[in-house]
Amino acid sequence: MKGLKEQILESVRPDLDEIEAALTENLKPNLPLVSHVAKYIMFGGGKRIRPLLMVLSARLCGYNGNYDKTLSVVFEYLHVATLLHDDLVDGADIRRGNPVAHSIWGNPATVLVGDFLLARSIAIATQTDSIPIINILAHTTAQMSEGEIHQLLCRGDLAVDETDYIEVIRRKTACLLQAACQAGALLADAPTEQVQALADYGHNIGIAFQMADDLLDYTADTSVLGKATGADLREGKLTLPVIYALNRATREDRKRMETIIGDMDITESGFKTVLELIEKYGGITYTGDRAREHIEQAKKCLEIFDTSRSRTLLEQLADYVLVRKM
Amino acid sequence: MKGLKEQILESVRPDLDEIEAALTENLKPNLPLVSHVAKYIMFGGGKRIRPLLMVLSARLCGYNGNYDKTLSVVFEYLHVATLLHDDLVDGADIRRGNPVAHSIWGNPATVLVGDFLLARSIAIATQTDSIPIINILAHTTAQMSEGEIHQLLCRGDLAVDETDYIEVIRRKTACLLQAACQAGALLADAPTEQVQALADYGHNIGIAFQMADDLLDYTADTSVLGKATGADLREGKLTLPVIYALNRATREDRKRMETIIGDMDITESGFKTVLELIEKYGGITYTGDRAREHIEQAKKCLEIFDTSRSRTLLEQLADYVLVRKM
Repeated sequence: MKGLKEQILESVRPDLDEIEAALTENLKPNLPLVSHVAKYIMFGGGKRIRPLLMVLSARLCGYNGNYDKTLSVVFEYLHVATLLHDDLVDGADIRRGNPVAHSIWGNPATVLVGDFLLARSIAIATQTDSIPIINILAHTTAQMSEGEIHQLLCRGDLAVDETDYIEVIRRKTACLLQAACQAGALLADAPTEQVQALADYGHNIGIAFQMADDLLDYTADTSVLGKATGADLREGKLTLPVIYALNRATREDRKRMETIIGDMDITESGFKTVLELIEKYGGITYTGDRAREHIEQAKKCLEIFDTSRSRTLLEQLADYVLVRKM
Repeated sequence: MKGLKEQILESVRPDLDEIEAALTENLKPNLPLVSHVAKYIMFGGGKRIRPLLMVLSARLCGYNGNYDKTLSVVFEYLHVATLLHDDLVDGADIRRGNPVAHSIWGNPATVLVGDFLLARSIAIATQTDSIPIINILAHTTAQMSEGEIHQLLCRGDLAVDETDYIEVIRRKTACLLQAACQAGALLADAPTEQVQALADYGHNIGIAFQMADDLLDYTADTSVLGKATGADLREGKLTLPVIYALNRATREDRKRMETIIGDMDITESGFKTVLELIEKYGGITYTGDRAREHIEQAKKCLEIFDTSRSRTLLEQLADYVLVRKM
């Protein structure tokens, strides 16, 4: 499947190059520290899926102005701001194989640079003079913070079900991808049904994207993941594979999983047992199937658009989410 | 001087009551925890100076719509969001005599509720359909986060001078008061010179307000302050009284102050010595004089407006800042 990745990257290379340049140009901090912290995390391996979705959505809707690359950085800044705050909230040590920002610059700078990026995002969006775009950003940001709080409250809660899980990942991941696609359509002054179709597209690939990410935490090699597998479970984050298995398990097996998960310090062999039980009850397969369904729904949303290079790219991007989280 | 406070409060009581109601109505969280944390800090003794400035500024410019109270809460939410993040950044224990939010709900919830309040603020401002108002908020938020970072970087730096200090308090305090006044004028569709006059008014009382606050840390009773005096110095925050004294002191006295301030753990007697030296070199008087100058400048800014009840109230509020930080 490596071919798909290379094919997509090839096709969007000029866009990605412009996005990279815009990410630096629009930061405009007064203090070098802000720039250091922001760039450390921003140029630490992100694939720019969010800016790219915005740019391609705008193009699909016929946009031919020159503010798309600038506006697109907003979706990376917001993403990075939440990474900074979330790593702190989660007490994470490693992100994409590197030490997290707060372990280098401390919690204070990390909190404040996150705030700065949120603020810069709104300032950049304001330049569009589009109230609907600003509105989407404001609501997305509010939803994302509430999503993180929701996840925090669910932490270690063995009663969490699939509905809770979907709600958490919707707020945590899908709503920003949705906002990126929606903003692209709005920037192009697209009719309501196109805006809605792209919002739905973004929502669905966002859900699939997070499901694929959560799967990786059980299935990936540490070298690919950039952190140890089982990190979610160790942080008390119950994701779909384990939620599904817990609900299907015999009372005895459920008890075994609960004992291991409830432990403050999950051992390597404990994690292996949980993984075996997840596989026994089909949690991995189930999660993969759900993700695939959302990808199919995402692609369906694009059917109202005429065939075009942008539409093909957005369809390919949807498939790519399943192959490997970007 | 108690008379002035009561007189002002009496005059603005109906406005304050509506602001209080709007603060609860517009929060609209999905999760009870968000409401608990936000209300804990929001209803812990704030005087609503920022919303009040916005409402009075709008009225001074002839506003007679019904969105002023709603928009005014934005300036309290932003204030509260920064308090949540700043207490965490500063490692503070006590605010207005109560334990700080992060000692009750933990750092994660505190970071995220702060983010939620920032996002809600922009969402509420967006309802005005006024790009200039949203723009001011976005830039103010960016400036405030950079101001906190600047303060963080200056911490314990004995080379900080009056210019650095003014820049820190401008970003940290004055720019939000300025934004509140400016937003009031913009909501009223006031002409540019009125918007500018109110911006300058807000800036000047903001600077005076923070200077008065910083003075309190050296001169107030603990019971009045709600926390121990000398807290700023213990956190390595050099404010104008000590900056001025350091610059005027003999080499020997400067050395004495530097030794005490440079200590990780400033003793009660050490603080007393610093306070005596600040008084010896006139740091208290100087700071009070600077604050008074800014109040006079603030009142001058209002001279372009016809005499009115709102103008009188804004003048009185300026005086009030010097009597006691609100």
